[in-house]
Amino acid sequence: MSTDYFNDHQEVLQKAVSAAATRGYWSPFSESPSPRVYGETANDDGRLAFEAYQGNDFPLQQEGAVGRVGSEVSPFGIPLNVRYPQVAAPVLIEQSEKALESWREAGPRAWVGVALEILKRLNQHSFEIAYAVQHTTGQGFMMAFQAGGPHAQDRGLEAVAYAWQEMARIPGLVSWEKPQGKNDPIKMQKQFTIVPRGISLVIGCSTFPTWNGYPGLFASLATGNTVIVKPHPSAILPLAITVKIAREVLVDAGYDPNVVMLAAHDASDDTAQALALNPAVKLIDFTGSSINGDWLESHARQAQVYTEKSGVNQVIIDSVDDFKSVARNLAFSFALYSGQMCTAPQNVYVPRGGIKTAEGHMSFDEVAAGLAQAVEKLTGDPAKAVEVTGAIQNAGTLQRIDEARALGLPVLADSRRLAHPQFEGAQVQTPLLLQADAANPAILREWFGPIVFVVATDSTEASIAQASQTVVEHGALTLSAYTTDQAVAREIQKAAEHAGVSLSLNLTGAVFVNQTAAFSDFHGTGANPAANAALSDSAYVANRYRVVQTRWHD
Amino acid sequence: MSTDYFNDHQEVLQKAVSAAATRGYWSPFSESPSPRVYGETANDDGRLAFEAYQGNDFPLQQEGAVGRVGSEVSPFGIPLNVRYPQVAAPVLIEQSEKALESWREAGPRAWVGVALEILKRLNQHSFEIAYAVQHTTGQGFMMAFQAGGPHAQDRGLEAVAYAWQEMARIPGLVSWEKPQGKNDPIKMQKQFTIVPRGISLVIGCSTFPTWNGYPGLFASLATGNTVIVKPHPSAILPLAITVKIAREVLVDAGYDPNVVMLAAHDASDDTAQALALNPAVKLIDFTGSSINGDWLESHARQAQVYTEKSGVNQVIIDSVDDFKSVARNLAFSFALYSGQMCTAPQNVYVPRGGIKTAEGHMSFDEVAAGLAQAVEKLTGDPAKAVEVTGAIQNAGTLQRIDEARALGLPVLADSRRLAHPQFEGAQVQTPLLLQADAANPAILREWFGPIVFVVATDSTEASIAQASQTVVEHGALTLSAYTTDQAVAREIQKAAEHAGVSLSLNLTGAVFVNQTAAFSDFHGTGANPAANAALSDSAYVANRYRVVQTRWHD
Repeated sequence: MSTDYFNDHQEVLQKAVSAAATRGYWSPFSESPSPRVYGETANDDGRLAFEAYQGNDFPLQQEGAVGRVGSEVSPFGIPLNVRYPQVAAPVLIEQSEKALESWREAGPRAWVGVALEILKRLNQHSFEIAYAVQHTTGQGFMMAFQAGGPHAQDRGLEAVAYAWQEMARIPGLVSWEKPQGKNDPIKMQKQFTIVPRGISLVIGCSTFPTWNGYPGLFASLATGNTVIVKPHPSAILPLAITVKIAREVLVDAGYDPNVVMLAAHDASDDTAQALALNPAVKLIDFTGSSINGDWLESHARQAQVYTEKSGVNQVIIDSVDDFKSVARNLAFSFALYSGQMCTAPQNVYVPRGGIKTAEGHMSFDEVAAGLAQAVEKLTGDPAKAVEVTGAIQNAGTLQRIDEARALGLPVLADSRRLAHPQFEGAQVQTPLLLQADAANPAILREWFGPIVFVVATDSTEASIAQASQTVVEHGALTLSAYTTDQAVAREIQKAAEHAGVSLSLNLTGAVFVNQTAAFSDFHGTGANPAANAALSDSAYVANRYRVVQTRWHD
Repeated sequence: MSTDYFNDHQEVLQKAVSAAATRGYWSPFSESPSPRVYGETANDDGRLAFEAYQGNDFPLQQEGAVGRVGSEVSPFGIPLNVRYPQVAAPVLIEQSEKALESWREAGPRAWVGVALEILKRLNQHSFEIAYAVQHTTGQGFMMAFQAGGPHAQDRGLEAVAYAWQEMARIPGLVSWEKPQGKNDPIKMQKQFTIVPRGISLVIGCSTFPTWNGYPGLFASLATGNTVIVKPHPSAILPLAITVKIAREVLVDAGYDPNVVMLAAHDASDDTAQALALNPAVKLIDFTGSSINGDWLESHARQAQVYTEKSGVNQVIIDSVDDFKSVARNLAFSFALYSGQMCTAPQNVYVPRGGIKTAEGHMSFDEVAAGLAQAVEKLTGDPAKAVEVTGAIQNAGTLQRIDEARALGLPVLADSRRLAHPQFEGAQVQTPLLLQADAANPAILREWFGPIVFVVATDSTEASIAQASQTVVEHGALTLSAYTTDQAVAREIQKAAEHAGVSLSLNLTGAVFVNQTAAFSDFHGTGANPAANAALSDSAYVANRYRVVQTRWHD
């Protein structure tokens, strides 16, 4: 290896390992898109780089390409017309297998060093990636920068830190000496070699291609596997840039660039299935619908499959000090990226008899109206609102808004189309708030998008029971609760631990239930149907490699 | 908890964690059945305890028992007539679920403390368990004592050490403080709770009920799960004693004894399937045939399934210094417990052009004859031989010997029935050595028992290729090789690492390929079809629990 990237990044690695253990706040990648952090020209450079991709062949050389593919359209109304090399699934597999032969020999230091260098360079390209994320996912720029850039890089680094920590526990060469009483001891030498599983397939989603894609990509790469990145056909660009940078680092380090490959494809073809079922694919990371995730778990039996799927996120309101701050916090969570987050709350349970507040009793209707007002207030100024809501990523979500309206439930706040001051063609919607009864079966499924049900329950006890049951049966990534009663808080915590869902209590300030911080918050628990793994923990990395030992007498 | 077992055993736990990291020799449980170690009366006490079980109701109180079951017959010819409580699968599940409610609240220190106390008491009952293992599995007494007692306890402790190490990395309560420039930082408290998966099912095998059963049992128990132990109907007693001791410790510690339950059943009923498919069963550890293991992996989809199944273990002979010591070592491996070990070698590849030795060239026929002679010599004195071979556990293995004979291959050493000086009814057989060509498809399947093929290959290159391919396609727990050539050794090691099988090089002394040492040797790699997990590593424990967090503002 010409460059010892491991040595270059050893300090940040040690800090990452330490941060993941203490779980206090830590991040090496600034979330502020400030010129003071990223340089005076960073934003312009990033925008120009993004614009240079538009209407062009994406600059990625992959052998065996049989043509070009790509039909991304920005949810803000701009056709991107980026054309990516199209390589058939068997050709990708063949090249990945060939790259594996040398990559597997490089060993943990090289795997981790290369992974860390890629993350460093991704960070330097955070603006370019931010524009790519914005114009494929529909996120507002600030979220596209933070979640698509530094926060995604944090999650990638976190996975590398876990991988390194586990691998570092395996000694290389060991002397083993077993006493034999008065006789000479039995002596052996034992060598332990970490071997990768094989080819890792990362299946990207259309809403958080980098944030949800990096953990699997970096966990697999850092444990010696080669990686085929298969983006969602409507959000290729952020991952194409990622793959391009990864391949540049690999070449600089003296490795085969095909250790990381891009599998761009059209929505209509079967590339995903062909890759997922190939016997050489031993690891699959997937973010997307339960239908596709369940299919992978059932059919790709040759692989370890890590999935994040659908769920029904919930809020329990029992009692509050200051209702306005509760409503403000929740309204932001409803509107943020138009609820197109796997962590966005959907069902808000409120006792039909109302709740206690510091200023006295509030009826159910007052609570429901208060939430609706907070949404209206947040989205009152379209110019400000669009920065929170971003745009709707795809037509399916618009259809779901119509479908929710057609349920015929009382409308607390209707979803309004907002004009985007910058992008005429942007599809922007405010959240739809509907009132529902706890017994309504419609609330038991995920309504991905800006669709919220304020649900009348018999009591807080009933809210807790319904929330638990929904987590167990339909899955959830988040549970949020508001209560001023310690005993109720304790009860909800117990329920969350039993059902296996993370709990946020009394969020009224600048932290929202949708958000998790790498190195501190686990994303997902792996304990309910919404996800079979957590980002990141030992279980997420420890089965991506195996240890093969050789022993002999001294 | 009346007794702080964690505190009592903290020192041994720390030593175990450290031993698993350095992987040198270590064991807290003496493998010597010496009165100086275990006490003057330990052997007699153990034998008397074993004899007291015979012909009686096993002293285990399990509520909801609908009768008694059990028809174990010692492979040494003695009917045991021990009668175990029979509890229907749904009743076992119900009681285990109830026990889980309090056990899950006890937390890691209590889980690990109880597990360590159980291991300590199991060690004190090593003789009793040894007799129970001997007379259910057919192992000779020394192996029954060592593998069924201290070595099994070592593997249990190893699993507890890994579980503790992983769980100890999760902090309890954490302060998280995110700087906000000139503004006050955002402060949160976060509590991380380790929650068990649920009910763990341990499916025992007939040959190593404790050695193969303890890792899963203790890994699950130490991570807060309740455990239902389902022994093989022909080897119930060793696990019944284990469950009895576990329940005594649980009661002494103030917990529900139903945290560990026994599911004794008749060979003909569907208890195993009913338990394995119950939705409350979240973890399954299985040792047995590939047919049953594959069935579990395919059907028990609600559970994490850890399997050790069939495989074809192999030996490559390329060149040797002293052939006699090679043959002696291999003959012992063939004869040890009559090859009824998942690690016993089956196919021995020898180039048809012969091999190099320090004393010159040896032809294939000379090598084959030399191996056969070594077997004959080892088994020449029946009184000594039976201590090595033990007895044949079941009629299926006797039938396989006949089936192998019926292949019509040249017989290098025929399997002979030996008279056991102590047990008239013991079914004892010497190894059957057959000569086969590399192209013979019969050698591609497992011939569980004392059946060995000395296989003529085109060259050492061909031996390596065939061994690799067999590991990849049919699985293997062990690969052994003999070569005096460093380059060949390196090539075989690479092949082993690619195929994913542990390698033993040039064993000619007191270490045999069949044996692995806890805390140093991984048993299985989890990288080939013979087993989907290794004993023990992080991956074996890290997914038996999940972490659920609760966060709130300071």
